[in-house]
Amino acid sequence: MKNLITRRKFGKTASMGLAGGAMVANLPFACAMGEQKKKLGIALVGLGGYSTYQLAPALQNTQHCYLAAIVTGTPAKEKTWSQKYGIPQKSIYNYQNFDGIKDNPDVDIVYVVLPNSMHAEFSIRAAKAGKHVICEKPMAMNVAECDEIINACKASGVKLGMGYRLHSEPFTQAVKRFVREKTFGDVIHVSSDAAYRSMGSPGQWRLNRKLSGGGALVNMGVYAIQSSIYATGENPISVSAQEFSTRPEYFKDTDETITAQFEFPSGATATMMTSHNIRANRLHASCENGWFELDPASTYIPLAGRTSKGPLDFEQVSQQQLQMDDFASHILYETPNLAPGEMGKRDMIIVEAIYKSIAQGGKRQELEFSNSYGFSK
Amino acid sequence: MKNLITRRKFGKTASMGLAGGAMVANLPFACAMGEQKKKLGIALVGLGGYSTYQLAPALQNTQHCYLAAIVTGTPAKEKTWSQKYGIPQKSIYNYQNFDGIKDNPDVDIVYVVLPNSMHAEFSIRAAKAGKHVICEKPMAMNVAECDEIINACKASGVKLGMGYRLHSEPFTQAVKRFVREKTFGDVIHVSSDAAYRSMGSPGQWRLNRKLSGGGALVNMGVYAIQSSIYATGENPISVSAQEFSTRPEYFKDTDETITAQFEFPSGATATMMTSHNIRANRLHASCENGWFELDPASTYIPLAGRTSKGPLDFEQVSQQQLQMDDFASHILYETPNLAPGEMGKRDMIIVEAIYKSIAQGGKRQELEFSNSYGFSK
Repeated sequence: MKNLITRRKFGKTASMGLAGGAMVANLPFACAMGEQKKKLGIALVGLGGYSTYQLAPALQNTQHCYLAAIVTGTPAKEKTWSQKYGIPQKSIYNYQNFDGIKDNPDVDIVYVVLPNSMHAEFSIRAAKAGKHVICEKPMAMNVAECDEIINACKASGVKLGMGYRLHSEPFTQAVKRFVREKTFGDVIHVSSDAAYRSMGSPGQWRLNRKLSGGGALVNMGVYAIQSSIYATGENPISVSAQEFSTRPEYFKDTDETITAQFEFPSGATATMMTSHNIRANRLHASCENGWFELDPASTYIPLAGRTSKGPLDFEQVSQQQLQMDDFASHILYETPNLAPGEMGKRDMIIVEAIYKSIAQGGKRQELEFSNSYGFSK
Repeated sequence: MKNLITRRKFGKTASMGLAGGAMVANLPFACAMGEQKKKLGIALVGLGGYSTYQLAPALQNTQHCYLAAIVTGTPAKEKTWSQKYGIPQKSIYNYQNFDGIKDNPDVDIVYVVLPNSMHAEFSIRAAKAGKHVICEKPMAMNVAECDEIINACKASGVKLGMGYRLHSEPFTQAVKRFVREKTFGDVIHVSSDAAYRSMGSPGQWRLNRKLSGGGALVNMGVYAIQSSIYATGENPISVSAQEFSTRPEYFKDTDETITAQFEFPSGATATMMTSHNIRANRLHASCENGWFELDPASTYIPLAGRTSKGPLDFEQVSQQQLQMDDFASHILYETPNLAPGEMGKRDMIIVEAIYKSIAQGGKRQELEFSNSYGFSK
């Protein structure tokens, strides 16, 4: 828990230690009541690369949660994961018997890490099993599915969080603080790129619309949408968008490169680029009295950044560790939900508006959100 | 002349000295023929801020040209400039008697530094007077005027160059070299911002469409168009654009913020943002095997840059000094014209297409240029 507070500090102070007293102040429920809450058990649903190389290793270091169960469609993985992480047979599920998880008291949270087309089904089944839900991004295949997930979680009285790891990450939290505290004055314009160059098998599920629901936009584009929003501190009121295709033989089924432009209530504007064919991962904010930027801005590897007042410097952290601990802390200690389901739905509304703008030759689409809809400061 | 070659060297070597032998090789006409060509005389037309604070001081250090004459509509400036720079009475003109410059053997080049609406008239009058012409950017109010300037210079047999100072500037030349030599492989995507936040009198000529022909786009936007082109090494084949207005009470008459997206023959794409309301001056290229970026990318103050292979480091130079020397060298020694009139016309064709796209709600506009039109490598 040593990083829970210090990682939110700015600059060089990030590596400072903290006395126990500060923790008491920060965790009133647990400590003031003299209770020692248990660690929450997480079930990972889908044991692909992200679960294997990011989430499971991160869960070895989490303070408020641990890897309690696995759900996989690949029998061979049951044995290797069970041995590696000491998961008992009773906590190993496949996609057919998954609903039995409702009777497993070791599982508090179900983390859905499946291809996008399966997000809604398993988030809803998890909610119906009475488990809290973390859903990977993009939330679902469309806005209607997002609503179904949100409603299922409400009906079951469980918490719902998006797998938006960056909201727990110190560089991103610095960006949100700059906006909140007007460190550089009002943000006037944000430019964000979230892209990589896909060179692997064209048969991968991310390039198959039936499984992914879209291409670069629903994968990396969601980061650029997120950047545009947390770097302005507002939900957008309009978006225009364009699509570019230069390797159609490879990107047969999904969008390759998309650019979009946003307007915000304050008058701020933002431009974004996302692509499966370009290497770029950046966020730059032009402010009234200076600027700040991250590069990289949304990778798993440590982020980096600088501002008109000097470089940003935070200790290296596991984004996934912090994210899952923050969600568990939300359940255990009623700390804020940094990436609620409404945030995932809001981003899907924007994704749909971007595709609609492209279909209409770049026509500006109005967006309507309440001022705080899906927002976390 | 000590910088003429060394400033084109990459990185740390930029400050290395050069032996005279290299100069002989570089200037075959002058040296091989054993002639000592004279310095060319420049007449500055329009003595506003740019002439006063950039061009005239730069002309005190140029090797191939010098400040020979002034043309001003403000009588008070005649005396101060004459005293400060030792300009003889016979080489001082106003806008009415300007055509008499044809009989002034001290003047070889007329540099038009007037408000945009006067570029065509004075470039054409200069050409008719038999003088070589440098025309500030944007070239004119529209493409038709660009053609008139180009035709007038052709008819008179004089050289025509744009005031695009960056083509003589070492960071920009490094960018062009990276593209030419594929230092980072093919360029896949370019992002460029050229903008400043206008807070001065709303009565300034740049915000008056009759004098400027447009707002941010024809002023700073031309730099972003230029960046997109020299950082991809190609002329674009299409453009889409959007306009944003957030301070209409200040920007009553001209565009405030414009974004645009380009496609290039190779499949590269570019996005640009220009504004009179945002502070940003950047160029970033995502390549097959790395990246390079400049920030600032087009200011008068020294540029700065970095690449995936390390930082860029060049000695500080006067961009205007190098630019005017390069144009004089083009006349004297037949070195390349780094920013020919066709380049200015090409950019104005793009400006008109951007305004047309905006008028059509962001509709993609096709652009047709020959592969090399207006290009300098």
